[in-house]
Amino acid sequence: MAITMYDLAGVEADRRFSPFCWRTKMALAHKGLQVETVPWRFTEKDKLPMPNDGRVPVIIDGGRVVHDSSTIADYLEDRYPDRPSLFPGTASRGLSTFVQNWTESVLQVGLIRLVLLDIYNHIGPTDQAYFRQSRESRFGGMTLEDVVKDRDERLPAFRASLDPLRRTVERQAFVCGDAPAYADYVVFGAFQWARAISDFELIAADDPIFAWRRRMLDLFGGLGRKSPGYGC
Amino acid sequence: MAITMYDLAGVEADRRFSPFCWRTKMALAHKGLQVETVPWRFTEKDKLPMPNDGRVPVIIDGGRVVHDSSTIADYLEDRYPDRPSLFPGTASRGLSTFVQNWTESVLQVGLIRLVLLDIYNHIGPTDQAYFRQSRESRFGGMTLEDVVKDRDERLPAFRASLDPLRRTVERQAFVCGDAPAYADYVVFGAFQWARAISDFELIAADDPIFAWRRRMLDLFGGLGRKSPGYGC
Repeated sequence: MAITMYDLAGVEADRRFSPFCWRTKMALAHKGLQVETVPWRFTEKDKLPMPNDGRVPVIIDGGRVVHDSSTIADYLEDRYPDRPSLFPGTASRGLSTFVQNWTESVLQVGLIRLVLLDIYNHIGPTDQAYFRQSRESRFGGMTLEDVVKDRDERLPAFRASLDPLRRTVERQAFVCGDAPAYADYVVFGAFQWARAISDFELIAADDPIFAWRRRMLDLFGGLGRKSPGYGC
Repeated sequence: MAITMYDLAGVEADRRFSPFCWRTKMALAHKGLQVETVPWRFTEKDKLPMPNDGRVPVIIDGGRVVHDSSTIADYLEDRYPDRPSLFPGTASRGLSTFVQNWTESVLQVGLIRLVLLDIYNHIGPTDQAYFRQSRESRFGGMTLEDVVKDRDERLPAFRASLDPLRRTVERQAFVCGDAPAYADYVVFGAFQWARAISDFELIAADDPIFAWRRRMLDLFGGLGRKSPGYGC
């Protein structure tokens, strides 16, 4: 029997535009499951099946009502384990690449503008000459001092840019889930970079990222914590 | 025999601050492999083993020289398959959560400010009244028209914010790697949302994201493409 799915529609019944419903439709197709979609509009909350939480997507599968695209994905994965996996093992390498690209294009790009001068202050004279010349060139001729001089003002925007990480480690222990793996080390590497050479308070103590970083510092007998650095 | 690793150091030999070297040190620890690190400074390029690409991390494992943290991670995973995996199957669910949090805190937040009025223009009168009231309240009392009025000026910043996605699908076919899985559908859902109701050109035709979206539209017999929408 086909699964029924309530799907947000425009004034034309077949114009379907909810990103969350699209997640579920693609997941159902991935699993090779038949689905009959019911067009549903914002103001038709009373037309949804019971229990009714007033939102879509919601599916009915053999009498069972399941709400919320993430819950539906987990449900489909658990209910239909013999069909193609929505979270296949081989995906973790590809997904780690996404986390790495986020780390390099958001996290590390933000970090370097906060701690650039601190690096300079922890390297020897020969390296300092090389570092100043190469980094000032990379920053379009700005001095190291100028790159970081407004870092206090830029800190809130930096912290806001970490939302994808924050939301993740707020709900699970590690970026990779219950246990750390390579993507955690990629993100942690950026924080170890800063920790080694800077006492600038990147992360507030009540931030879920702070607690995650502490879990990372605890790993492997405190490998990260034992290395000379500042802060926790 | 322990693996040798060249590790960026400060003026104090034990102050190690390279984010890329930290990735490798954590990966070696994860695999339970012994390592002897050699402190190395920016200007000591001629002290690195051959073949020498002038950068760290580089490891020597039983005479084999491996450069670059990503290459080293792949090497360790393939060379030591019986040790704890750096990319375990169970990680893909956790990693998909990161992609989902990025989608919801960056991609969808950026998108809604570009296409909000287009949604309004594709829903019926009853829904329009509800939508205007609820969304204008959510945007602090701005009219739908005002939210999107400078969208052309905001487009470059929106496109730049997609760098983590762009870099990922530039080098691999899907967010999840060689084959699509749930995290691809989460990101794709956001683009289907826009596609259904807006002809605004979010992504340039020569953007790797454009090609990825076309691959996504091709899936499951063109499931996404067949749905009414604009553009490709």
